[in-house]
Amino acid sequence: MGEKRNTSLIKESNVDVLIIGAGPAGLMAANALAKSGVNVRIVDQRPDKVAAGQADGIQPRTIESYGLAERLLREGNQMHMAAFYNPSASGGIELTDRVPDVTAPSARFPFEVTLHQGAIEAIFLDSMESLGVKVCRPLIPTSIQVSEDDDQLKDVNSHPVRVSFFLERRFVNENLVVLRNLNPFDDHEESEIVHAKFVIGADGAHSWVRKTLGLTMDGEQTDYIWGVVDMTPDTDFPDIRNRCAIHSNNGSCMIVPREEDKVRLYVQLDDRNAVDEESGRVDKSKIGPHELLDATRKIFHPYSFKTPESFDWWTIYIIGQRVASKFSVKDRVFIAGDACHTHSPKAGQGMNASMNDTHNLAWKLTQVLRGWANLSLLQTYELERREYAQNLISFDRQFARLFSGKPRTEECMDGVSHEDFLKIFQTFSGFTSGIGIHYAPSPITDPSYQAHAKKLIIGQRLLPQIFVRAADSRPIEIQDLLPADSRFKLLVFVGDSSDATRRDRIRRVAEDIRDVVRPYSPDGLTAVFEIIAISCTKKADVRHNELSELFGCHWSKILLDDKDVRGKQGGDGYVNYGIEPSVGAVVVVRPDGYVGMVAPFENVKELGAYFVGFMKGLSPNM
Amino acid sequence: MGEKRNTSLIKESNVDVLIIGAGPAGLMAANALAKSGVNVRIVDQRPDKVAAGQADGIQPRTIESYGLAERLLREGNQMHMAAFYNPSASGGIELTDRVPDVTAPSARFPFEVTLHQGAIEAIFLDSMESLGVKVCRPLIPTSIQVSEDDDQLKDVNSHPVRVSFFLERRFVNENLVVLRNLNPFDDHEESEIVHAKFVIGADGAHSWVRKTLGLTMDGEQTDYIWGVVDMTPDTDFPDIRNRCAIHSNNGSCMIVPREEDKVRLYVQLDDRNAVDEESGRVDKSKIGPHELLDATRKIFHPYSFKTPESFDWWTIYIIGQRVASKFSVKDRVFIAGDACHTHSPKAGQGMNASMNDTHNLAWKLTQVLRGWANLSLLQTYELERREYAQNLISFDRQFARLFSGKPRTEECMDGVSHEDFLKIFQTFSGFTSGIGIHYAPSPITDPSYQAHAKKLIIGQRLLPQIFVRAADSRPIEIQDLLPADSRFKLLVFVGDSSDATRRDRIRRVAEDIRDVVRPYSPDGLTAVFEIIAISCTKKADVRHNELSELFGCHWSKILLDDKDVRGKQGGDGYVNYGIEPSVGAVVVVRPDGYVGMVAPFENVKELGAYFVGFMKGLSPNM
Repeated sequence: MGEKRNTSLIKESNVDVLIIGAGPAGLMAANALAKSGVNVRIVDQRPDKVAAGQADGIQPRTIESYGLAERLLREGNQMHMAAFYNPSASGGIELTDRVPDVTAPSARFPFEVTLHQGAIEAIFLDSMESLGVKVCRPLIPTSIQVSEDDDQLKDVNSHPVRVSFFLERRFVNENLVVLRNLNPFDDHEESEIVHAKFVIGADGAHSWVRKTLGLTMDGEQTDYIWGVVDMTPDTDFPDIRNRCAIHSNNGSCMIVPREEDKVRLYVQLDDRNAVDEESGRVDKSKIGPHELLDATRKIFHPYSFKTPESFDWWTIYIIGQRVASKFSVKDRVFIAGDACHTHSPKAGQGMNASMNDTHNLAWKLTQVLRGWANLSLLQTYELERREYAQNLISFDRQFARLFSGKPRTEECMDGVSHEDFLKIFQTFSGFTSGIGIHYAPSPITDPSYQAHAKKLIIGQRLLPQIFVRAADSRPIEIQDLLPADSRFKLLVFVGDSSDATRRDRIRRVAEDIRDVVRPYSPDGLTAVFEIIAISCTKKADVRHNELSELFGCHWSKILLDDKDVRGKQGGDGYVNYGIEPSVGAVVVVRPDGYVGMVAPFENVKELGAYFVGFMKGLSPNM
Repeated sequence: MGEKRNTSLIKESNVDVLIIGAGPAGLMAANALAKSGVNVRIVDQRPDKVAAGQADGIQPRTIESYGLAERLLREGNQMHMAAFYNPSASGGIELTDRVPDVTAPSARFPFEVTLHQGAIEAIFLDSMESLGVKVCRPLIPTSIQVSEDDDQLKDVNSHPVRVSFFLERRFVNENLVVLRNLNPFDDHEESEIVHAKFVIGADGAHSWVRKTLGLTMDGEQTDYIWGVVDMTPDTDFPDIRNRCAIHSNNGSCMIVPREEDKVRLYVQLDDRNAVDEESGRVDKSKIGPHELLDATRKIFHPYSFKTPESFDWWTIYIIGQRVASKFSVKDRVFIAGDACHTHSPKAGQGMNASMNDTHNLAWKLTQVLRGWANLSLLQTYELERREYAQNLISFDRQFARLFSGKPRTEECMDGVSHEDFLKIFQTFSGFTSGIGIHYAPSPITDPSYQAHAKKLIIGQRLLPQIFVRAADSRPIEIQDLLPADSRFKLLVFVGDSSDATRRDRIRRVAEDIRDVVRPYSPDGLTAVFEIIAISCTKKADVRHNELSELFGCHWSKILLDDKDVRGKQGGDGYVNYGIEPSVGAVVVVRPDGYVGMVAPFENVKELGAYFVGFMKGLSPNM
């Protein structure tokens, strides 16, 4: 694309990170980067934000990880129970089983939250706005170019990505805003050019960024067609407020109860007529919410659904299961969210996977932009998130096949049995809850010393655990001390600090730790690292200030492995983490809450060997 | 006082409730009444709201009762542990014991929250502002008159209280606002007259309302002088983040840790010089925060306190223990908070007692103003809150005497021992936590059928208990379904609703309940009453809609006495409440969360006998 023909019409600007697409993945990134003080810009081609519909399920891991819990719990619905219905002997369906919706034993929030996508996006938008960052919309990108100049690409301070946009013009006529529908291939001027250090393409399943950069999607489309409809139902079905999986002889259905009295129904459609034969795409003119309700009624017999006054949202889709061949271009442009993986929405993975993509990416970009980490750190994004996406697709294939399959009945003995379906539902609970995500070994995931904290799986998120604060005996969930603030956290399990001999050893270890990480903290130790010390001294005996002095940290960062004053919460933290109190350990928690490595208490210099792998600094052996 | 001499200068207005004083008691009342849609006005003579200091302790009961928990927990400090120091053999003080700060076993929040009064008032101010109610300030009242006309007093729609005010004039000079100090006894015009149906005098210990209406304070002043200082300490004292009671040979001290790193110290003063002999009042010119810090250092030896850069707030007071002889005048003017009880602040009771006063009063005023209840309901305010205040003073006398007394040492064998002090600290925990408040029998507290719910003490707040919601198995703390929304809640413990014979009985009881309360609900059943049904059917078997149909209530109001899906929360509700599942019971919870009565499941007509005692309605036997 274009030489500048009329410079007076062209705005040019530099930005550290340009985000294209303001869905959950883009907003997660924009908010995280803005909170880290990164110079960020986010654009979207849609004139307005999402009002209803779209994704709506929030995994247990998503609730616990982003500091969103308070608002999600206030605004959202909770799914605690899953119910399963199957054909009854007398015709129609009957209740087969009710089981916990989330079975992952370590889930801190043992349920999923459901809330419409607009409300979830609003949480990010409100937070961003308080930081002065807004979505620029509508803004349609027309070209993207990544420099081929190796020197430029190696210089983190360069702006090697050039993105141009049309600025759409608005004609305001009374209260009506008409958007002129500009065709990007018309012979128009480029209206704005942005030079970015990094670009995140979070522009959805039909990603312009992905297509323009020539990244392909691997995988295929299934034959399964499903409809989705959101409404406030009037029904005698007794499990309408539980997540339900219904296998009937007239097709399958999933119920996802939502905020207030709303419910989402996923309804399997048998009708190839809904698909346009030429394009292979769904033709929404052939089927609507009333047809979806008719299909629902057939599936739910003998239960009834009255026709509601209105439908909140509806759509039809064909399940496709695809992963992008690459997630980045020269580690300067990254694609995230639906732009790099598409799958069935019913397992409630889409929005979570998308937000997790950019949650994984944002802290890495921040560390690189601040000059703390090397550019090579960014390679771990594709490494970690593409493997996850492939696992997701693999799970989704099995789940979709069993869900869209006929139920096992006397007439259909090779159909799907309740036992088969329940087994996959529960086997994958660790995965679908987001709890079980496990990143492979890499420069930021080093399992060498796993034996020093046997039950904290390196590469998984830190297990939730309640400790009590030494200074005031307040019970504290350790995850709440690990916000995604771009800093690595060093959890120092010191053993029993009430013993004077042991305390001398702790003093030496504390000094060693500070010596080891100092070369990587150009902006001061606590700017780059947070040190939290966890003692097994009991709350009746501890003198918190002895430890906070040793580690030079605030009183609130000294914890005890003890129960709270009522004996109801906390305790057994060393046991739950598989750490020997007489030995001790240093656990490195990544900025995204995942365990990055464990260092032996006797040899904390190993921390240096870990950080030197991706961080900038003087020799770790200085 | 006055004939109107110049009507053109006089504003006159009518209001349903006029509140004089915008401290915690007044703001609690204003917010509660505004939320109930009552026409309310609140005035204060101070030009600005409180910025620091004053009261700061929030009891467990206060956290659980007003819907403030989320913000209190976010902004406040929590006190979980109490530490006790006494003279050591080697001179100075030493740690004697650490015990839970709150020992009341049924406390839902087993700790106190500390937060400065301004932050607590801000919660109310923000809520009121969202309802369009603001504090009018500064406004100085000059006269209050209550009509002597019995007919007018009996008519709830009359405005028998006349209050006049000076309107202070502000001279704005650059950024400086100068308030002209008008002497109320000058020969000025009355500037505003308010005619109120009811007045609440919440104007503090030196209450103008109380004095003007000639209500006396009974009780006396002690010899104990204490200083209070708020600061961010720099100390090696290891319990600086716990609530501490220190008895030393140089006087006593209490530590109350606060939000962020702040701490409040209550320091006993030995210096009669601080008191002006003529007035008997403290002379603040003779002593200041540096003198308080010096006294602190003597008490804390061998621990050190560095001199802070600044003090946030400080004051000196002489403990006085007094209760007003009457809390109301003709049930049209009520005094509340410090206006009717003063005592030592160290037990953290003041602000809680004040807010509880108006929490008790607001729903009664609302019910009367809406025409639901008779004027006689208002008599229960003085009945309940004066008895409470007397108990508070009685507790405070013992506590202050033990706290201000010399510690027991070899030289002073009749001093206060740790055991004595701990005993009163723990004996009164039910009281000081606010959990154990027990209202005496009255038209709204009828213990006749206590045997039907043996462990729900009638006259005390409903015990917290987690049930699971029938429709979606979500664990629900029952207290969260009992907001102070002016409505009585009927908790119907139906037994096992999965049994068809039992369900027929439940159906008849449900009909009886609706028949009994209908005469008292002129605005519709759910406007005046909330019905919540609690079944002991298990979550695996329940069909929630069978019960919600019987009781005509929303699906969210049907609960089960069962554990949550992980088996970690809930269960044993019938046992904990002392209700026999094969029998059942109907528990009446007052709008303020207290158990008002229990009706036998077999004879729900007793509900009518209760409500006819104070509510307006047709014959309950219709």
